[in-house]
Amino acid sequence: MKRTGKTVYFDSAPIIIATSAIAGKMEGQGPLKDYFDQIVNDPYYGSKTFEKAERKLCSNNCQNVLKKANLNPEEIDFLLAGDLLNQIVTANFCARELQIPFIGLYGACSTVIESLALGSMLIDGGFAERILSFGSSHYQTAERQYRMPVEYGSQYPPYKQWTVTGAGAFILSNQGTGPLITHATIGKVMDFGVIDPNDMGAAMAPAAVDTIIQHLNDLGRTPIDYDLIITGDLGEEGKTMARELLRETKFDLDVVLNDCGAMLYSQKQPTGSGGSGVAASAIVLASYLYQELSQKKLQRIMLVGTGALLSPISTLQGETIPGIAHAITIEKPI
Amino acid sequence: MKRTGKTVYFDSAPIIIATSAIAGKMEGQGPLKDYFDQIVNDPYYGSKTFEKAERKLCSNNCQNVLKKANLNPEEIDFLLAGDLLNQIVTANFCARELQIPFIGLYGACSTVIESLALGSMLIDGGFAERILSFGSSHYQTAERQYRMPVEYGSQYPPYKQWTVTGAGAFILSNQGTGPLITHATIGKVMDFGVIDPNDMGAAMAPAAVDTIIQHLNDLGRTPIDYDLIITGDLGEEGKTMARELLRETKFDLDVVLNDCGAMLYSQKQPTGSGGSGVAASAIVLASYLYQELSQKKLQRIMLVGTGALLSPISTLQGETIPGIAHAITIEKPI
Repeated sequence: MKRTGKTVYFDSAPIIIATSAIAGKMEGQGPLKDYFDQIVNDPYYGSKTFEKAERKLCSNNCQNVLKKANLNPEEIDFLLAGDLLNQIVTANFCARELQIPFIGLYGACSTVIESLALGSMLIDGGFAERILSFGSSHYQTAERQYRMPVEYGSQYPPYKQWTVTGAGAFILSNQGTGPLITHATIGKVMDFGVIDPNDMGAAMAPAAVDTIIQHLNDLGRTPIDYDLIITGDLGEEGKTMARELLRETKFDLDVVLNDCGAMLYSQKQPTGSGGSGVAASAIVLASYLYQELSQKKLQRIMLVGTGALLSPISTLQGETIPGIAHAITIEKPI
Repeated sequence: MKRTGKTVYFDSAPIIIATSAIAGKMEGQGPLKDYFDQIVNDPYYGSKTFEKAERKLCSNNCQNVLKKANLNPEEIDFLLAGDLLNQIVTANFCARELQIPFIGLYGACSTVIESLALGSMLIDGGFAERILSFGSSHYQTAERQYRMPVEYGSQYPPYKQWTVTGAGAFILSNQGTGPLITHATIGKVMDFGVIDPNDMGAAMAPAAVDTIIQHLNDLGRTPIDYDLIITGDLGEEGKTMARELLRETKFDLDVVLNDCGAMLYSQKQPTGSGGSGVAASAIVLASYLYQELSQKKLQRIMLVGTGALLSPISTLQGETIPGIAHAITIEKPI
């Protein structure tokens, strides 16, 4: 078995040979603006609906990552992808364009990390040579599906997060040069009883902490073995909560713990507790983190994709919001 | 590479050591009624909402398959599951109960076959010893999400299918006795321009045909190498369409082609063109097909999970309905 505890390891660590990140206007005004491949200021992206705009973001981003890797779609064995929209409709329509065998995933905002973990298993398992993993989210499409159309002008509580508009794409390969995915931990669904669909950081923090501890314990590592342990989209509130939960364990992660959603915006932006959405971890990994790893400024990071398994119907029916988190360790190129 | 063309093969074919199938009232009055583990006549299943009823079906079915395999949840490495409800909420809540690392999937009605294909790769790849794969659908929850609440009494066109109420669960293992999954083909998203959300058989038939031909060609086989080639939920209309499309190729499948959805109901039942939904292929495989394979009455079958990647929002926005199909070959126990 290529497992230690609940964590799988890769004998031949899959290589992230190319990435692409497209970001929206708010993200394009944030601290990471210089790292993105493209910034799209128009939320409609020249399309008739926000949903079509999200699809265009995602589709153009897939074309861009293929171009950067100098690959044709026929050279990719599988697509692994998903998004926040019902029936993962963005991913489905992008897969229709690409005509590559498609494995549809749903892990809320953890979807892209789920796809990278699974893609690494398929490559190291010998079933694929190259995989295209992608995901997207869009502020307006997510708000109107999960909460209220933004046109309603609902009040914005300070702990609420801002759904990231953007798309991230990754090509994993068994050959080539780039950062390596060495380990993955698939998380369990955890539920601490949060019922407010605006308060997703709190819903996801316990799952993130559980998966971080599992990953470290399985590998016999401590936080100092990592340059950075970074969660997907807990936001500032959720990050604080995760730190507090971790302080009750033997791990004190204060120095190395950060959050993609919290990094995406500056304090001056009207984005509440920070970014959330599939694109939060996807575009931060595809841009800033990938470049830092490639340039060996970061040696080893743990990226913990976090998902609030929120459903408007289940919330209306009185259910709480469970969370999930999947972790991957990524190392600088050899 | 463990691949031939687009089809993956398993050096150590994963074994389906146990299955469980719960069916609803309509399915419990159909030709396969004696094969199910349990029949639930009340669409509410004693719950307050149809969604909670679906969850209870799915949850009880997971408990039953674990009991039949004499396994505790801690002995399962991964859950692979999904369903038709937005945010795959049924699978999420079942995973919350089971506390097993969870990989959420969405492939519409092909989801369970997607999970068996992927689960086989994770086992044969050496990342898991045992996997629990499951899925569900429910007539009332699907109708109100995808079309109209049944209480509205909408007209029922003859080509419309009946969403199967039920849940199927499977335990895949690298050890034990049972039918074997030997090959899998992940399909591409195909779109032939169907726009009527009632006409899903037509939306899925081209994808099914594409995947069947891919699977046969990759393995150098013809239909006579199979006792049965069975699609997930094309229904009678879709099955006829698939046969016609196949007649234009070198493969004439008339003798061996059938459809799980079409098999579930008798002509006398008011179920239109036949069954559809995640549970269509799941409960037919978990009951009738599994028993026939286990008793070696069937030697080798190809099961082709079919999914209509229908989304109410995209349909309202004028999009067509793409389809997808994934195929697995299953053989009798050694």
